[in-house]
Amino acid sequence: MMRATTETRQAVRKGERTREGILRVAVDLASVEGLEGLSIGHLAKTLKMSKSGLFAHFGSKRDLQLATIEMARSIFVDYVVHPALAEPAGIQRLWKLCDRWIGHVEEKVFAGGCFFSAASFEFDSRPGPVRTAIVAAMKEWLGILTRAVEEAKKAGHIKDGVNASSFALEIYSIAVGSQWAFQLLDEKRAHRDARETILSRIRSQVTSAARRGEFARLLKF
Amino acid sequence: MMRATTETRQAVRKGERTREGILRVAVDLASVEGLEGLSIGHLAKTLKMSKSGLFAHFGSKRDLQLATIEMARSIFVDYVVHPALAEPAGIQRLWKLCDRWIGHVEEKVFAGGCFFSAASFEFDSRPGPVRTAIVAAMKEWLGILTRAVEEAKKAGHIKDGVNASSFALEIYSIAVGSQWAFQLLDEKRAHRDARETILSRIRSQVTSAARRGEFARLLKF
Repeated sequence: MMRATTETRQAVRKGERTREGILRVAVDLASVEGLEGLSIGHLAKTLKMSKSGLFAHFGSKRDLQLATIEMARSIFVDYVVHPALAEPAGIQRLWKLCDRWIGHVEEKVFAGGCFFSAASFEFDSRPGPVRTAIVAAMKEWLGILTRAVEEAKKAGHIKDGVNASSFALEIYSIAVGSQWAFQLLDEKRAHRDARETILSRIRSQVTSAARRGEFARLLKF
Repeated sequence: MMRATTETRQAVRKGERTREGILRVAVDLASVEGLEGLSIGHLAKTLKMSKSGLFAHFGSKRDLQLATIEMARSIFVDYVVHPALAEPAGIQRLWKLCDRWIGHVEEKVFAGGCFFSAASFEFDSRPGPVRTAIVAAMKEWLGILTRAVEEAKKAGHIKDGVNASSFALEIYSIAVGSQWAFQLLDEKRAHRDARETILSRIRSQVTSAARRGEFARLLKF
């Protein structure tokens, strides 16, 4: 194995930084104009870079789309999932996931709202590697929400009878509905309402122990 | 005013039929590839028509997009809203709206799933007349759902304390979430689950009179 010289390492880091910087712009562009609207030509124009410079990073529009999805996934995980994993398993973690998820639209982490909701509806009827990558990211996210509900059941916070995957999909739906109401209908109260609705859904499924526990204030009991 | 001859009338009818036929294809195309992917050139190719023939109907891509939205709205109203308005105001009408709405995705009324969910997420960050038309259609639909909840309150079927617009948005969200699970994740049970979840949400908000009333069977009491 060759040992990288300092210069090589710096060049690699610079290349990576550039790639990362390009992809952050691509994610914002795609969140506004759609993944299909994302072409190397369009991105080059936005970045004031040469198309050949971009081709050095991404060989094709498809590669660019796939790398953009991966970058969006990584931004989402950093903003939403990591802070939630720092919370103890149970109601706290479940709530943190919901709160940060609503927060990422509220705080405009992606310029055009929820990158993944837009990508989901854009590609749901278009088979191919882009759809496959979106499906994988969405299954991962729904899996994280479902696991958080299961952990809350195991911790004795949420009733045993609750179907974790149905409940996760219900929470998912309420959050996506609020993103829609905010982004499309300019409903200013959408985020507050979504938090209220999700909290009330969680409240309806908690055990009597959790009602008296340390989350009573969070759950507004 | 000139009186139209039989020939003129027939020609107008033929023109209208052709326009309607073209737009039905445009709606399906847009539901799969997005409204932005809908161009006169693309549509002409799909229909095996000349571009100039299509230009006679639609002067521009924007006109074509707006006419396509209007056609999708009209198909949706015929399939979902009209059968519900034939039901008595109250739980029956509210449920019929939900049932037909889920049904229109199940029955593939639009080739690519829910035309309006896709259009909503595609255009939510793109100001202009297309977004304005989508917003108007979605506000109309959310208004119909909200009115159905209000009517159910007035009929004494749903509790007075229920906030009609929040509850309508919650129902809306559950249905959109199920469309997403069906179209993107190929979740075969998505429609059945969505009907169950919406019924259980309605069940949790009905008055005790409605529990004993003629909907007891529908509501599974």
